[in-house]
Amino acid sequence: MNPYQRALNNLRTQNPLVHHLTNYVTVNDCANITLAIGGSPIMADDLEEVAAITELAQAVVINIGTLNARTVEAMVLAGKKANQLGIPVILDPVGAGASALRNQTLARLLAEVHFAVIRGNLSEIRFLAGFASVNQGVDVSPADLLTVQDSQAVAQQLALARQAVVVITGKVDVVSDGLQVALIDNGHPTMSRITGTGCMLSSLLGSFCGSQKDYFSASVAATLALGISGEIAHEKTQHQGTGSFRVALLDAVSQLTPTTMEQRGRLQIVKA
Amino acid sequence: MNPYQRALNNLRTQNPLVHHLTNYVTVNDCANITLAIGGSPIMADDLEEVAAITELAQAVVINIGTLNARTVEAMVLAGKKANQLGIPVILDPVGAGASALRNQTLARLLAEVHFAVIRGNLSEIRFLAGFASVNQGVDVSPADLLTVQDSQAVAQQLALARQAVVVITGKVDVVSDGLQVALIDNGHPTMSRITGTGCMLSSLLGSFCGSQKDYFSASVAATLALGISGEIAHEKTQHQGTGSFRVALLDAVSQLTPTTMEQRGRLQIVKA
Amino acid sequence: MNPYQRALNNLRTQNPLVHHLTNYVTVNDCANITLAIGGSPIMADDLEEVAAITELAQAVVINIGTLNARTVEAMVLAGKKANQLGIPVILDPVGAGASALRNQTLARLLAEVHFAVIRGNLSEIRFLAGFASVNQGVDVSPADLLTVQDSQAVAQQLALARQAVVVITGKVDVVSDGLQVALIDNGHPTMSRITGTGCMLSSLLGSFCGSQKDYFSASVAATLALGISGEIAHEKTQHQGTGSFRVALLDAVSQLTPTTMEQRGRLQIVKA
Repeated sequence: MNPYQRALNNLRTQNPLVHHLTNYVTVNDCANITLAIGGSPIMADDLEEVAAITELAQAVVINIGTLNARTVEAMVLAGKKANQLGIPVILDPVGAGASALRNQTLARLLAEVHFAVIRGNLSEIRFLAGFASVNQGVDVSPADLLTVQDSQAVAQQLALARQAVVVITGKVDVVSDGLQVALIDNGHPTMSRITGTGCMLSSLLGSFCGSQKDYFSASVAATLALGISGEIAHEKTQHQGTGSFRVALLDAVSQLTPTTMEQRGRLQIVKA
Repeated sequence: MNPYQRALNNLRTQNPLVHHLTNYVTVNDCANITLAIGGSPIMADDLEEVAAITELAQAVVINIGTLNARTVEAMVLAGKKANQLGIPVILDPVGAGASALRNQTLARLLAEVHFAVIRGNLSEIRFLAGFASVNQGVDVSPADLLTVQDSQAVAQQLALARQAVVVITGKVDVVSDGLQVALIDNGHPTMSRITGTGCMLSSLLGSFCGSQKDYFSASVAATLALGISGEIAHEKTQHQGTGSFRVALLDAVSQLTPTTMEQRGRLQIVKA
Repeated sequence: MNPYQRALNNLRTQNPLVHHLTNYVTVNDCANITLAIGGSPIMADDLEEVAAITELAQAVVINIGTLNARTVEAMVLAGKKANQLGIPVILDPVGAGASALRNQTLARLLAEVHFAVIRGNLSEIRFLAGFASVNQGVDVSPADLLTVQDSQAVAQQLALARQAVVVITGKVDVVSDGLQVALIDNGHPTMSRITGTGCMLSSLLGSFCGSQKDYFSASVAATLALGISGEIAHEKTQHQGTGSFRVALLDAVSQLTPTTMEQRGRLQIVKA
């Protein structure tokens, strides 16, 4: 059994509680995918309870998709508490570069919280890594549709700078802890035609990292899990449309087995 | 026609408006299930309008899943207004015991508002009934997987203390008004693998109680409705996965008939 | 190719970014339908970034479904910025007439923002046009189930008063810019048994108006697109239930072609 199969088994055995500070657009999808993979979701963002809920959790996911003054404070508090407890925090920097508020919030989060994993599209991760990036909203910018080599370089740079695992989602997904780089060639273009696949991957990252200490393998496993599920969803629904695809994606995550991960994963590990 | 079949007919005839003060995780599911069973959902939580909207409604559902300072005030205001108007208020004490904020909020709600129905899992209801409970988030704690007799006793105790109908969901659901106890052995384990089935039951309780004064029968009917729909959803989708199950659950609620309720209900009434 | 087919082609070519200030009940449906038709959704409502996000967008949708003090300010700010930039703003006056807060908010929005399109059910649009209306929540009032002629008159009146395109959804949908009136006899009754079809149409209006300057044709195209998709969804799912219908509706929008719009559209243009 490879490390990614083991990661899925760990998750299903341990049923980690994953605390989400997330956006109200895709929060239901995040809850359902967390349950589908074998975790338990909880969402609580009031300042008075955010630390208490974090104490119950095995991982925290911070997603700035619909941030506001109230929730940013809660994100900082949850992140700091998680750091104290030694549980992993996942950052989803939705729309990094799109507004001063997002950029300042990300600067503050990165200054006050250590993230175990940072996941975004290339636009977002480039912004965090200090590259200039022209952001067009929350989806990837056409100018960022560059080569996999670019993604690798950016992922490694940010990973080293932040001592985090960095996941860049794109045609080929890139996962790096600064030393190792994994290239994952699963997934299907229809995944970008429904809302929340990025957010859902962040929930899977929380679920996998909440059940084992090797965050690099956990992150590769989570990325494989979603990509493979996207492929299965497309095979099941073909051209029925994005509503059916969305249902089938959740189906596939809930039915995913270690064997399927091994058989369908198109993974390449590149040592740095 | 039994009282539960009549309850469904009442609901479909009267199309009650059910005002929800609820969480942002499952609010869409709550709206859709209210429509599916034959009610009309409305969600409004600004302090300036919450009383006005309550005046239009036939029932109010208060769910503390993602409570915050602003929404707690709105919950109290809606509950008090509903009490003045004599319309039923349903309480869903999500995560009771999980944080001081939740516990204080529940104490305040119970002190200031009379609830017609209180629905939770055994962890939550035990907490409200004054038992010590180790809460692990918003799902039921393993330590609470006790016998149906325990659930009965806790339900009756809280029902008498609060002059409310108490619904405890679990493998066997228990409904009690303190005198009568109904045991409902419908449902399917997959219901706990999607988010919001508890919240959805609270919406059904609002819908049924919003269309008749006998809240005990209304609560039994609502609990039967969801449990039977869960079984039908499983039969339709088998092992397709949780995405399909979720769709089929809403399908089944929307297609539920009094005849199906009579044929499939596994209900036992125990006089106290 | 007729103007509505061209409108769909424009949309798919231009992939407009549609900024939503909307409610937390149906926001996920709004995001998914925007993607399904070919746009890109973004939701951001913090006062500090709402103008910056509007600058990136090609259209703004303002939906007051779950308004509160914080979000109303953001709606005004986004609307004003959009007016400065010359990008269209869509108003969805959910529950107009149902509370003083909603009515005051609508008065303020109409005073401070120019709307390219205003979409509601007959209760809501009558309220905005200054007619007395007995509102029963967010769904259409039985007293408003009047004739298409009434809807036409109300739509034209509000369109002229506000220099906007007005869309009234009902058994027959009415679209008017004050001079022209389009009657659209597509759609299916099941659309009113799921939450958010009105909100979803507002998202489609934003998507179509965000990709061409002729807002009347864009609005007719959006209304045709949803109505035709509702019919296709019903044909595909028949009496499976509202869960399947909802999935099939999103499917149909995502698979809609100009040819289908031409073949299935039941459109009548009445010159004023």
